[in-house]
Amino acid sequence: MIDIAKNIATTPRRTKASVIRELLKTTNQPGIISFAGGLPSPDNFPYDFVADTVKEIMAKKGKVALQYGPTDGLPELKEEFVKFLKKHESIDVKPEELIITTSSQQALDMVGRLFLDASDPVIVEKPSYMGALQVFRSYGAEFIGVKLEDDGISTEELEEKLAWLRAQDEHYKFLYLVPDFQNPSGVTLAEAKRRKVLELSEEYNVAVIEDSPYRQIRFEGKAPKMLYRLDQETHKTNNVISLFTFSKTFAPGLRLGVILGHPQIIRKMEILKQSLDLCTSSLNQLIAAEFLRTGFFEKHIEVIKKDYRTKKNTMVSALAKYMPEGVTWTNPEGGLFLWVRLPESMSADDMFQEALKENVAYVIGSAFHCDGSGKNTMRLNFSFATPEQIDEGIKRLASAVKKRLVASK
Amino acid sequence: MIDIAKNIATTPRRTKASVIRELLKTTNQPGIISFAGGLPSPDNFPYDFVADTVKEIMAKKGKVALQYGPTDGLPELKEEFVKFLKKHESIDVKPEELIITTSSQQALDMVGRLFLDASDPVIVEKPSYMGALQVFRSYGAEFIGVKLEDDGISTEELEEKLAWLRAQDEHYKFLYLVPDFQNPSGVTLAEAKRRKVLELSEEYNVAVIEDSPYRQIRFEGKAPKMLYRLDQETHKTNNVISLFTFSKTFAPGLRLGVILGHPQIIRKMEILKQSLDLCTSSLNQLIAAEFLRTGFFEKHIEVIKKDYRTKKNTMVSALAKYMPEGVTWTNPEGGLFLWVRLPESMSADDMFQEALKENVAYVIGSAFHCDGSGKNTMRLNFSFATPEQIDEGIKRLASAVKKRLVASK
Repeated sequence: MIDIAKNIATTPRRTKASVIRELLKTTNQPGIISFAGGLPSPDNFPYDFVADTVKEIMAKKGKVALQYGPTDGLPELKEEFVKFLKKHESIDVKPEELIITTSSQQALDMVGRLFLDASDPVIVEKPSYMGALQVFRSYGAEFIGVKLEDDGISTEELEEKLAWLRAQDEHYKFLYLVPDFQNPSGVTLAEAKRRKVLELSEEYNVAVIEDSPYRQIRFEGKAPKMLYRLDQETHKTNNVISLFTFSKTFAPGLRLGVILGHPQIIRKMEILKQSLDLCTSSLNQLIAAEFLRTGFFEKHIEVIKKDYRTKKNTMVSALAKYMPEGVTWTNPEGGLFLWVRLPESMSADDMFQEALKENVAYVIGSAFHCDGSGKNTMRLNFSFATPEQIDEGIKRLASAVKKRLVASK
Repeated sequence: MIDIAKNIATTPRRTKASVIRELLKTTNQPGIISFAGGLPSPDNFPYDFVADTVKEIMAKKGKVALQYGPTDGLPELKEEFVKFLKKHESIDVKPEELIITTSSQQALDMVGRLFLDASDPVIVEKPSYMGALQVFRSYGAEFIGVKLEDDGISTEELEEKLAWLRAQDEHYKFLYLVPDFQNPSGVTLAEAKRRKVLELSEEYNVAVIEDSPYRQIRFEGKAPKMLYRLDQETHKTNNVISLFTFSKTFAPGLRLGVILGHPQIIRKMEILKQSLDLCTSSLNQLIAAEFLRTGFFEKHIEVIKKDYRTKKNTMVSALAKYMPEGVTWTNPEGGLFLWVRLPESMSADDMFQEALKENVAYVIGSAFHCDGSGKNTMRLNFSFATPEQIDEGIKRLASAVKKRLVASK
């Protein structure tokens, strides 16, 4: 047999199996209450809508649904997404500012592939989304982490780092942000800071990736404007590239995402996608187009918000009820995750196996830190488990924390 | 705005918009009979099967269908594909030899990504599949073309080229073949030559990519064994990686492919796919699993074979009826394409616009030649047009050829 170790290329040698995804497999054991995944609740999936819609599509647009489609996406879905952006985000776009992707993960890969050569610096929040870190790392990115505060990335530190990069003549390409209900922390970037980010983007000539999978799931408070909108209205850098997904508002099983950006960027993305998979499933695109066109989205998102609001409140109450002093957590206004900080001296990494013994699981916070820091933190998902499981799971987690606190004294 | 030309990475700079795909857009004008695409006939798509199956899936397995799935594919589909390989190809495999991909194009990208660093030599048939050349080129491949004969790649020339590469200490990784009803030529690799390819793979330590999108669509003659099977039965190099798709036997709109290979290779592919799109659409995988499980595939493939047999015969008859002396063509036993050779002095590239004026389109043969040769050749697709359109289209094409022959005298 060929010598695989010798024969594979540089990129796959950099692409490690995600330790976390391997850990996640252990959390699927029966009896374990898992806050580790990022799965939407299957109780909310619109099963009848999908069955009925596919029946109608087969009758009326079957020839489109089962055939190859254009690489940039079916006009039917692009049109509906243009209307969606206008209605829900007050963003006016032309279809050539959009490309449909096979999941938001593909969009992240396309961003990496478009911009990154080995050892290019990429600026990320600390913590940041693990799946993005993994894909950028596969292209050889070197991460510049910037502290995340309660109202989003520290713009002071961001400016310092950008100034330093420019002084070093480093070939930095983009800043990666999850501005709304960030994964993993649940934090939202304040509007004033969004404006500052755009000013820095202009000044330092750096693209801004606005990864926005959770924004539509806001169950309380007022939404700051999207970076794309602020840029369109005021700053006019054209440097913002925004990523959307249907995974959280509709269903991950369709694998559908959208990239929004300047037509020149989108055209480059389209050429890349010809190589990657030629086009996204026409059937799935037509289902999503109907999801938007019929107004089912507006009804459905209320169901999801109501469910996740209840679950988030249950989790926050349980944390207050069960956790010992010195443990803190975020209280997000939307999304799927919250963030727990143990006392500095404790390690959530070390505690993982003990939590499993208590039949509860989480994701270690250090996995989201580009420099491996954040050992005392953990990400908890509140969308998947039931309220009863959430209360019981947090009780178990608190028990593991307390045992460890006692043991360390 | 950021300077795109300065900010994009090396890979997208190598990834050119396919001239051919741009040309194809011009062939969609009304009135044009196009033999240029590679689309399956929508007349054969199983619309009712899809509608009924999705209804049943939503009722019984909706939670799986609409959720994220494992990166290597749903067990339901992998299991059915294992049975399919056993029944139709006499190949015995374990699930860990399979990974489900989001289209065969993604599989080609994964092959390129797994093996290729810039300027690695890749051995291809001359002509070879344009979409594969494009993706390998994006990874910086340098092509070594080997002549295609009526019974497949010239194994003499292949051996010479491999010996030369080894003598140069070149870091060649794989040989890319479409052994059955090759795209573009329609040629099938003879079994004796398949064995020779495997011997050379062993001797020269080179992986063999067996791209097999059309094999199930054989409408006459006896199928030689798959390279994967020959290797499993006799040669035991473990160097064969075989690619399958549901696009030609079922529907391209599902974007489903399969890679078959040694578990160590498949594991590497799985890690790559985590970055690329995390997983393939669960809904579409379950539809395809039912397509196989229920035996619908066996009935459906007969419909496709009957249709394409008729169309191929119509095209071959029309070529004999209308084409002037000096023009030759292949007569494939299956697949979607045949290959036309004009007299050496003629250029199918130059004739393209004249053919469009006659309201008929084809793909220029030079696009399939890694070195730009083959100017006097063209690829004709016979799956999409109706028999009446095929007869009329070949008549028009012959008219363009004749006019050019007269003009050149």
